[in-house]
Amino acid sequence: MNRLHPLLYQEIVDRALLEDVGHGDLTSEAIIPPHRLAKGKIVAKAPGRIAGVEVAAYAFRRVDPGLELETLVQDGDAVQPGDEVLRLRGSARSMLTAERVALNFLQRLSGIATETAKAVEATRGTQAIIVDTRKTTPGLRVLEKYAVRVGGGRNHRFGLDDAVLIKENHIAVAGGIRSAVEAARAYLGHMHKIEVEVETLAQVEEAVAAGADAVLLDNMDLETMAEAVRLVGGRALVEASGGIRPETVAQVARTGVDVISLGWITHSAPALDLSLLVTV
Amino acid sequence: MNRLHPLLYQEIVDRALLEDVGHGDLTSEAIIPPHRLAKGKIVAKAPGRIAGVEVAAYAFRRVDPGLELETLVQDGDAVQPGDEVLRLRGSARSMLTAERVALNFLQRLSGIATETAKAVEATRGTQAIIVDTRKTTPGLRVLEKYAVRVGGGRNHRFGLDDAVLIKENHIAVAGGIRSAVEAARAYLGHMHKIEVEVETLAQVEEAVAAGADAVLLDNMDLETMAEAVRLVGGRALVEASGGIRPETVAQVARTGVDVISLGWITHSAPALDLSLLVTV
Amino acid sequence: MNRLHPLLYQEIVDRALLEDVGHGDLTSEAIIPPHRLAKGKIVAKAPGRIAGVEVAAYAFRRVDPGLELETLVQDGDAVQPGDEVLRLRGSARSMLTAERVALNFLQRLSGIATETAKAVEATRGTQAIIVDTRKTTPGLRVLEKYAVRVGGGRNHRFGLDDAVLIKENHIAVAGGIRSAVEAARAYLGHMHKIEVEVETLAQVEEAVAAGADAVLLDNMDLETMAEAVRLVGGRALVEASGGIRPETVAQVARTGVDVISLGWITHSAPALDLSLLVTV
Amino acid sequence: MNRLHPLLYQEIVDRALLEDVGHGDLTSEAIIPPHRLAKGKIVAKAPGRIAGVEVAAYAFRRVDPGLELETLVQDGDAVQPGDEVLRLRGSARSMLTAERVALNFLQRLSGIATETAKAVEATRGTQAIIVDTRKTTPGLRVLEKYAVRVGGGRNHRFGLDDAVLIKENHIAVAGGIRSAVEAARAYLGHMHKIEVEVETLAQVEEAVAAGADAVLLDNMDLETMAEAVRLVGGRALVEASGGIRPETVAQVARTGVDVISLGWITHSAPALDLSLLVTV
Amino acid sequence: MNRLHPLLYQEIVDRALLEDVGHGDLTSEAIIPPHRLAKGKIVAKAPGRIAGVEVAAYAFRRVDPGLELETLVQDGDAVQPGDEVLRLRGSARSMLTAERVALNFLQRLSGIATETAKAVEATRGTQAIIVDTRKTTPGLRVLEKYAVRVGGGRNHRFGLDDAVLIKENHIAVAGGIRSAVEAARAYLGHMHKIEVEVETLAQVEEAVAAGADAVLLDNMDLETMAEAVRLVGGRALVEASGGIRPETVAQVARTGVDVISLGWITHSAPALDLSLLVTV
Amino acid sequence: MNRLHPLLYQEIVDRALLEDVGHGDLTSEAIIPPHRLAKGKIVAKAPGRIAGVEVAAYAFRRVDPGLELETLVQDGDAVQPGDEVLRLRGSARSMLTAERVALNFLQRLSGIATETAKAVEATRGTQAIIVDTRKTTPGLRVLEKYAVRVGGGRNHRFGLDDAVLIKENHIAVAGGIRSAVEAARAYLGHMHKIEVEVETLAQVEEAVAAGADAVLLDNMDLETMAEAVRLVGGRALVEASGGIRPETVAQVARTGVDVISLGWITHSAPALDLSLLVTV
Repeated sequence: MNRLHPLLYQEIVDRALLEDVGHGDLTSEAIIPPHRLAKGKIVAKAPGRIAGVEVAAYAFRRVDPGLELETLVQDGDAVQPGDEVLRLRGSARSMLTAERVALNFLQRLSGIATETAKAVEATRGTQAIIVDTRKTTPGLRVLEKYAVRVGGGRNHRFGLDDAVLIKENHIAVAGGIRSAVEAARAYLGHMHKIEVEVETLAQVEEAVAAGADAVLLDNMDLETMAEAVRLVGGRALVEASGGIRPETVAQVARTGVDVISLGWITHSAPALDLSLLVTV
Repeated sequence: MNRLHPLLYQEIVDRALLEDVGHGDLTSEAIIPPHRLAKGKIVAKAPGRIAGVEVAAYAFRRVDPGLELETLVQDGDAVQPGDEVLRLRGSARSMLTAERVALNFLQRLSGIATETAKAVEATRGTQAIIVDTRKTTPGLRVLEKYAVRVGGGRNHRFGLDDAVLIKENHIAVAGGIRSAVEAARAYLGHMHKIEVEVETLAQVEEAVAAGADAVLLDNMDLETMAEAVRLVGGRALVEASGGIRPETVAQVARTGVDVISLGWITHSAPALDLSLLVTV
Repeated sequence: MNRLHPLLYQEIVDRALLEDVGHGDLTSEAIIPPHRLAKGKIVAKAPGRIAGVEVAAYAFRRVDPGLELETLVQDGDAVQPGDEVLRLRGSARSMLTAERVALNFLQRLSGIATETAKAVEATRGTQAIIVDTRKTTPGLRVLEKYAVRVGGGRNHRFGLDDAVLIKENHIAVAGGIRSAVEAARAYLGHMHKIEVEVETLAQVEEAVAAGADAVLLDNMDLETMAEAVRLVGGRALVEASGGIRPETVAQVARTGVDVISLGWITHSAPALDLSLLVTV
Repeated sequence: MNRLHPLLYQEIVDRALLEDVGHGDLTSEAIIPPHRLAKGKIVAKAPGRIAGVEVAAYAFRRVDPGLELETLVQDGDAVQPGDEVLRLRGSARSMLTAERVALNFLQRLSGIATETAKAVEATRGTQAIIVDTRKTTPGLRVLEKYAVRVGGGRNHRFGLDDAVLIKENHIAVAGGIRSAVEAARAYLGHMHKIEVEVETLAQVEEAVAAGADAVLLDNMDLETMAEAVRLVGGRALVEASGGIRPETVAQVARTGVDVISLGWITHSAPALDLSLLVTV
Repeated sequence: MNRLHPLLYQEIVDRALLEDVGHGDLTSEAIIPPHRLAKGKIVAKAPGRIAGVEVAAYAFRRVDPGLELETLVQDGDAVQPGDEVLRLRGSARSMLTAERVALNFLQRLSGIATETAKAVEATRGTQAIIVDTRKTTPGLRVLEKYAVRVGGGRNHRFGLDDAVLIKENHIAVAGGIRSAVEAARAYLGHMHKIEVEVETLAQVEEAVAAGADAVLLDNMDLETMAEAVRLVGGRALVEASGGIRPETVAQVARTGVDVISLGWITHSAPALDLSLLVTV
Repeated sequence: MNRLHPLLYQEIVDRALLEDVGHGDLTSEAIIPPHRLAKGKIVAKAPGRIAGVEVAAYAFRRVDPGLELETLVQDGDAVQPGDEVLRLRGSARSMLTAERVALNFLQRLSGIATETAKAVEATRGTQAIIVDTRKTTPGLRVLEKYAVRVGGGRNHRFGLDDAVLIKENHIAVAGGIRSAVEAARAYLGHMHKIEVEVETLAQVEEAVAAGADAVLLDNMDLETMAEAVRLVGGRALVEASGGIRPETVAQVARTGVDVISLGWITHSAPALDLSLLVTV
């Protein structure tokens, strides 16, 4: 039932349009008559998972409310090269003015959904869920976390404000896991959870004993991870993180962890290749 | 003499901080005493080219003007794993609140500079310059185009408003190269250039004859590119674009083109791995 | 260790100053010479709990960075009529231009802290924590939730995005508690909690059995609340809400609930009476 | 003929929606199917005067332009517990996402209109008009002053820029009433009025003699007020202010003052109790 | 004692800088070494009245807080060709980046002050004050009305919200002067004035009799104006407006009107010629 | 095929409306019944060239989407006194609220188009094109440069970011024309042009020899200009600038320059006289 309310991306898309259009689309203004009509279609040029169709559609409509759009795939659908994603009909100028911005969103978000879907696929049959991190593009987090959900992943906390994650650096400063967890418990309301990043089995035990809702195993080898899962024994959720690669995610999942967080699905996902073809 | 005026990124960084901090950094507020001091250092964990040091520094100072920063590398410097990029001294809370946003900018921009530098290196000794495209992250173009310059590349037009690029779609709508170039010439002031995207040698000749300042060879094979360069014979600049990969960029350069534009250096550059270590 | 980062309120205060100053402070411009110096002090005229001193100080400094400020009480301190809160020294004009905005924030936030502190005091010795609701002033939530913490309360979820609260209206639409909780569990990442609003003991049991992290007892009488606490038996947190008044909050706490949420502390707290006195 | 142009509150409501929705309405996204329809009605749970119906309606429509709204009462109408204010029909999700923001505006504005109407009622039959002050919620002044008008009051100056009010602090700095009024007269255009805050009958005479358009009697007892009215004898408007309570406002009006300004109607008005009921 | 608080123009200047700098000052970045120092001076090239020195200074400081500025004339001073207005010392790049924006503000505002001063001078010795209109540049009203004050004029109402001006179009719609004035009186608080635009002596009498605070004589000939002044006889202020030119303003003043409003001083004032000279 | 996309001016017009309306249109709210209908027409009162009809229309529609508008002239059309530009039908209140802002845009832009058209007319039959400068109103450049195009002129660079113009001050700092041009060439991508401001024939030769795309002759007399044109001999474009007045522009054009840039058409163009008439 996943969705992204337009309120949450309209301003982001508007800003991107202004960034690209600047003080005018010189090329289209100069050479395309204002009333020239055309047809357009966005086509996949590589296999992947689509995300951001409504965002791209909004970009076209923001430039010209008169453009007619027909959506041929939904967010979450898989595409193959040659598949059509969106059809357009209307002012040629408007299509060309909006083209790059619409594609920039659609390609980036589809790239993230595609990478996420691969990781989800690789871990199918295990109990592990794939989640994102805060390693997102500045200013686009709401969209990129949505794309992760589209790809079948779930979201870790959105930002610094919706859950407590006590990391190595916090522990170094706070002077220990127990006191850190207690301080957090005394500060939070009842609706926020606490997770602790740990590097050793001793820390795992310390965190769980202190009442952490979840432990994040940072850069552990597979055996230690499996050991940690046994040690926790259901008293908290167990998350694996750090240095997990597409080729190792399945092995990590089989250690029995509940959650695997992956930075690469947002910070290093290549854009999905898509292009717009216009005909008169 | 490359630079990026702080006016151009302050609002972008501010927005990214608000995106991440939301209504508060729950973890740091809860467990780190307000006057606890610490030292921090940002360290490279992979080899690459650094870009965005001042942007990251601004993020830390925006969170806390009292943080002392020492910059150990400059934008454009190469780093190896273990190299320190930035040292911090001051409030532990402030460092941890700003950490992720500062790193998100620094890692993304350094990733772009690193990819660009590879392409520049691969074409060293040829006359070809490496340029970017408009396939940038929505909202971050000014930063990403700066990172391309840091990596040794140059910038293609910034947006739709600072040069005319008549692409395949425009020609399809406008009804021909000659009339499109003439219409552009009659509309523009004297300080803007006109480039035409072409797919055949016949189009190359048509564009140059129509007075285009540059021709963009779209997805041509190497031989045809070389032929196009000969055909143009210095009457216009020749740009190669489309489907050029890291492993083929050197060959493209050797065809004699003046300019090679690469989408992947912005839309698919993986983030450079960097991390912040904090000690009391 | 509670705090509110200035990033989170600077824009709110700036907007309030522009709202009040409009196109100029006619009175001060007209009758106060630009270099006239003065002393000012903000004095309590009623007993209460202070919140927002730094916010008020920011308003003065935003109007004139040259104003010298001395803070005599900290957020969370109790004041009696006649107590000084803040002393100012510098341009008379600047003080008078900023006065009303600084006081509007300080009086409102102190009013909220004062009401919260009364509820916290009334429930002292019980296990119940006092929390706020989303019934806050549009645009000021981050400040008002901070004031609740200053008064000794804790924060319920900040908005619709940091926890799931399945209310009566949701259940009516979703068709039952169990399916609603399951749908939420399947959608959320591992760091978010689920609370269910219930009206009967049967619903209490249904929610807890479905795995809710907390149940919100809506408008129950004291006996039923106590019964609900026994029924839950520690399997989830129990929150009382709805129609609780200052004079009944202690009784509610004694039923054994873990959490009491109060709308009045934000939506109907009277402003604390404070005023600025200026002398030459 | 009172009205509030939507231009003046659209941005305020948009900001409030973003504040509440954050990066998504987790609960509704998770458990309510996107095409589930419902009916809703906003019902009064306490007696009062309604203000802000169009503002609340805008919040619903901003979340979902497809929601059908039927307004059952107009701003200024009195309601009794059980009275319906607004009926909704459409997407269940959208209603629930917008609910809290719509109610927060409607309850606050109706609270102000209700308090204002009580004061207006209490002074009926006298010549005194009830006006507001600048003690409004930061960022909401345009809405709160509108609610005062809805309640039958009128507006004092909107901010520092649309009239001159020489207060005690100004006089202290400027060195006297006469010179302050003269300075103001020499600075202002012909369309702005000057009012002087006075504390004694001698000051009343001084202000009127200096040409003030109005005098503000600050915290005077009833007898002195009546004396001041006689002294002024129609040469200027007379306003009573400071420490006037609901139970004393009628007596103040009977002293013959022209204007009574009340801070409590904005800074301490309790929200009017209203709630939304949703059925499938 | 006239002033313009920096709060009121900072955002306007910031926006103008971003408009001009775009994504970077290509020329200065390319050819001026970052640490090259220079001296600059802004010099008058035509006689006039200076306004906006602090605005221009803010533009330079916003680009580079390290620039040293020395102000040689104050707002309101007269200058002759060759007079220095501002001296700068510091980064050559920064000066050149800010130059055009600083001058655009300074030249426009000085142009307005110059035109205003001429009209004030032409009417010296009469009782008439010179005021502006709402025919200002969109977005710059607060600055342009300030420039009018600098030139010795005063401000008419700032916008639609700080006074009532019942114009010909309003009367046509409202159905008469008397009912319009009464409706306004019943709607306004006590601090706002009412002016009525009139075209005949009969309307003058009607407006004054209805209680207007001022009458605006629209496009009357000089004799009728003088007659109108006599007719009003001090019962209201009399303003002349419409079609008054620099060469006729003195005659208008001698008719005895209290106020003369001039559109040309804002909508058609030529910029004052000023330039920046930079030396190493 | 000139056009201005609404995206580029909507925010500017919105801001202007808020500037003028402030917290409400007191006059219209007070005296015009909400449902009173009227007809309006904007009429020229002086001869000129119209620009900004769509901008003015947007202002009316932003205030009231229900207003019906009929456009009688298009941007670029010449008008004579009495000609109708725009007809309106709908709410009288809405028309009067939007009137001033709509006219302020239309009058200013038409003033610029009118001045530009005069210069274009004066140089008809020569090869010279008329272009604008960066001496535009802060915040309105995109509109004013559009008005220049409407008047038949073309646009010089938009800002500091879309072309290089090496001016006298840059040369003074950079130490010579040749090194400045070379530095620019090494920094720019291939789509940007370089122009050099010169004052002597020796500098003309130096700039052309260094590879400048254009030379700007600054304040040269007519004979030297003609000499410069011969000297350049088609190797670069030649622009005349500085001190050119309406009465001298034709002579300048006859020197053979390619481009004439005029500051006065934006910074000192008087507003075109237009007014709105409303009837019931």
